[in-house]
Amino acid sequence: MPDKKIVLDEHEIPDHWYNVVADMPNSPEPVLGPDGNPITPDMLTPLFASGVIEQEVSTERWIPIPEEVREIYRLWRPSPLHRALRLEAALGTPARIYYKNEGVSPAGSHKPNSAVAQAYYNKQDGIKRLVTETGAGQWGSALALAGQMFGIEVLVYMVRISYEQKPFRRSMMETWGAGVVASPSDQTQAGRNVLAEDPTSSGSLGIAISESVEVAATHDDTNYALGSVLNHVLLHQTVIGLEAKKQFAIVGDYPDMIFAPCGGGSNFGGVAFPFFADKAAGKSVRLVAVEPTSCPTLTRGHYAYDFGDVAGMTPLTKMYTLGHDFMPPGIHAGGLRYHGDSALVSQLHHEQLVEACAVNQLETFEAGVIFARQEGIVPAPESNHAIAAVISEALRCKETGEAKTLFFNLSGHGHFDMAAYDRFFAGELEDYEYPEEDINAALSRLPQVD
Amino acid sequence: MPDKKIVLDEHEIPDHWYNVVADMPNSPEPVLGPDGNPITPDMLTPLFASGVIEQEVSTERWIPIPEEVREIYRLWRPSPLHRALRLEAALGTPARIYYKNEGVSPAGSHKPNSAVAQAYYNKQDGIKRLVTETGAGQWGSALALAGQMFGIEVLVYMVRISYEQKPFRRSMMETWGAGVVASPSDQTQAGRNVLAEDPTSSGSLGIAISESVEVAATHDDTNYALGSVLNHVLLHQTVIGLEAKKQFAIVGDYPDMIFAPCGGGSNFGGVAFPFFADKAAGKSVRLVAVEPTSCPTLTRGHYAYDFGDVAGMTPLTKMYTLGHDFMPPGIHAGGLRYHGDSALVSQLHHEQLVEACAVNQLETFEAGVIFARQEGIVPAPESNHAIAAVISEALRCKETGEAKTLFFNLSGHGHFDMAAYDRFFAGELEDYEYPEEDINAALSRLPQVD
Repeated sequence: MPDKKIVLDEHEIPDHWYNVVADMPNSPEPVLGPDGNPITPDMLTPLFASGVIEQEVSTERWIPIPEEVREIYRLWRPSPLHRALRLEAALGTPARIYYKNEGVSPAGSHKPNSAVAQAYYNKQDGIKRLVTETGAGQWGSALALAGQMFGIEVLVYMVRISYEQKPFRRSMMETWGAGVVASPSDQTQAGRNVLAEDPTSSGSLGIAISESVEVAATHDDTNYALGSVLNHVLLHQTVIGLEAKKQFAIVGDYPDMIFAPCGGGSNFGGVAFPFFADKAAGKSVRLVAVEPTSCPTLTRGHYAYDFGDVAGMTPLTKMYTLGHDFMPPGIHAGGLRYHGDSALVSQLHHEQLVEACAVNQLETFEAGVIFARQEGIVPAPESNHAIAAVISEALRCKETGEAKTLFFNLSGHGHFDMAAYDRFFAGELEDYEYPEEDINAALSRLPQVD
Repeated sequence: MPDKKIVLDEHEIPDHWYNVVADMPNSPEPVLGPDGNPITPDMLTPLFASGVIEQEVSTERWIPIPEEVREIYRLWRPSPLHRALRLEAALGTPARIYYKNEGVSPAGSHKPNSAVAQAYYNKQDGIKRLVTETGAGQWGSALALAGQMFGIEVLVYMVRISYEQKPFRRSMMETWGAGVVASPSDQTQAGRNVLAEDPTSSGSLGIAISESVEVAATHDDTNYALGSVLNHVLLHQTVIGLEAKKQFAIVGDYPDMIFAPCGGGSNFGGVAFPFFADKAAGKSVRLVAVEPTSCPTLTRGHYAYDFGDVAGMTPLTKMYTLGHDFMPPGIHAGGLRYHGDSALVSQLHHEQLVEACAVNQLETFEAGVIFARQEGIVPAPESNHAIAAVISEALRCKETGEAKTLFFNLSGHGHFDMAAYDRFFAGELEDYEYPEEDINAALSRLPQVD
């Protein structure tokens, strides 16, 4: 009987993060300021701690994880690698399916991997408060937890639709001592602008980012924390893939294909980048980012410079984007409702080193229920995207007889998403294919960069 | 730096359950039928699988865990043993605090340890459907999961107050394919009787048990499953304590005191009984059952024969009881709202081999928030009872300077209990001391047994 669950001792928590920049065939495209010139690290200091700014621009392959951060990681890391033997049997596939369970963190997802690091570096800089946005609530919970661990106040702008759909995510953040505000709010100019145009706005990550950045930029003791997209966030998440590599070595297997849901890219980068190092060295491994058809950034967006937020307060990043004023439908995978993507993931996708596919909402919930009934764990809607893609591939392997090794990151559990499952069972969920003309219209409004 | 988390490989899941009966100084008191005579195993066959009936009356010390059950355990077991270093530091105590985290199961508590075993033995007997009651929803979730794993239908009577307070527990059970009905319901005679007297009844475990037993007794293909109280349930839970002993051996420590919340006793028995084996052999270890002041079975009840349910359909068990018609206040620790207790725990308490204490609701939530802010995990309200008792003891150690080793079972996470935390933060939760006269009145209605 093969191992069903491969656990590591806490001493095997990685002591370095892996920086994919060192192995990319081309340097990252520069990030541009409002004047169209590349921004310099010191321009980021009003928003970010010096430690994370260094990481944002680093080209070093290995970056040490501070002992204080590993100390907090030890509360739940290393996370287990599971072999989904029951799922394989239920599908009748010759494929071997593995998943890393990041839902074991106290906040219920992979997000604390970066939140803890960011809280640490801000504490080092004497910052008293962190402000952030959250979509599904996963990132806000993670930062609330991390702030509590290092004695830093946390203020979270939570996308209104999630605030309403997931009230208990708010309770959880409050249990860890954070303040939570529904976004768009009347507390910021960015929020008031949106509400003036649409008083019933259900919000978006882009809007909530604008609000958070505004608060951080206007308060000296306050910094901003972003839960995805930026290089340093993906860097912190590489503990996932680094642990997984040790775990695969223990069972003597190696993935042919790696799947992860992709919104801003932290989940995907976290699990896939450490394997990219092998790919860059010639090893055969396919890295597949899975996104919703309702927010098809990598699969249908343009690779262009755009703002990270709705109000255009952030620097310009070259990335796959649907336009920074894109307003995705209110799907339940709140963490994937983002118009843009990580610059690193985008560049690697543009260079055809990373693949992408999009799945519809109903298929993702069908996949999540199949998974829950075989493997026990009820997954987060975001994670269901990876599961849907893996099930498709496993069924393809069944047809071809290929005994591929498929690996995905179970980014989080769905304990705070049961209302979405209720709606799925009640037949109330819808599929969304974003209209081509809407995407084109949004793209036509991209900022012009020479 | 001491280990913060002691993990075991899945091959170290125990291969036998430990039966405390073999080490008790006196044989268990007989269970009595309606005629006052001891019941025989065959009288239980309308309700239970043959495998669990054998275990219910077994005096063997070690009972093999079927490979099919261990196979399902592997989805999440062994559970980690954590050293609560941050909590210790925050309390400034010289005590060493450890907890076993049973919240890592897919259902979020220790309950699947028995649910999986019960589903297995019923499958062996060709049973098509299991019916059960649930208070906080933990047991119902566990049986829904276990039924799904073995292809058995599951019907759950959920105590109405929990059904209303925790709608997402219902969603979770439905995700695993179970049917869920609020109790008291109009589907059974027992439920209709209660509703006739009090149409707004918020229900109780005792009522829900009556409904479940009635359905099982009146359908040939349907058996009943109980999530606590009975000997075989406590037996299945001993995997917790057995794993913990291996984990303590790894770090070279051993508990001076063990704490667990105690409603029906499965959590307490599961963690404490394997250490009772050492105690019976002369080792010094104190076993402390922690219950709510609102339902103070061990601390204020009578040790007497009583029914396990409200309607008096179950056999009579000698146990600590508040009277089978006792209606506990609607505290949020739904899993502890039971008038009686395990016969084994009761007898050991009566013989002064097991201690008990009661804590008030507010203190338990205060303790839970302290724990969440130090250790990350947001605990279930039931678990908060053990945490409150441990914090008291740790602070006592701080005064005396004793470096005791304190160990408790974190029976589950609080992801489905955030409404209770909300109410706690809003100052809406109350303490309850059950009035002496009410307890006396209920006790005066105990069934008379010669």
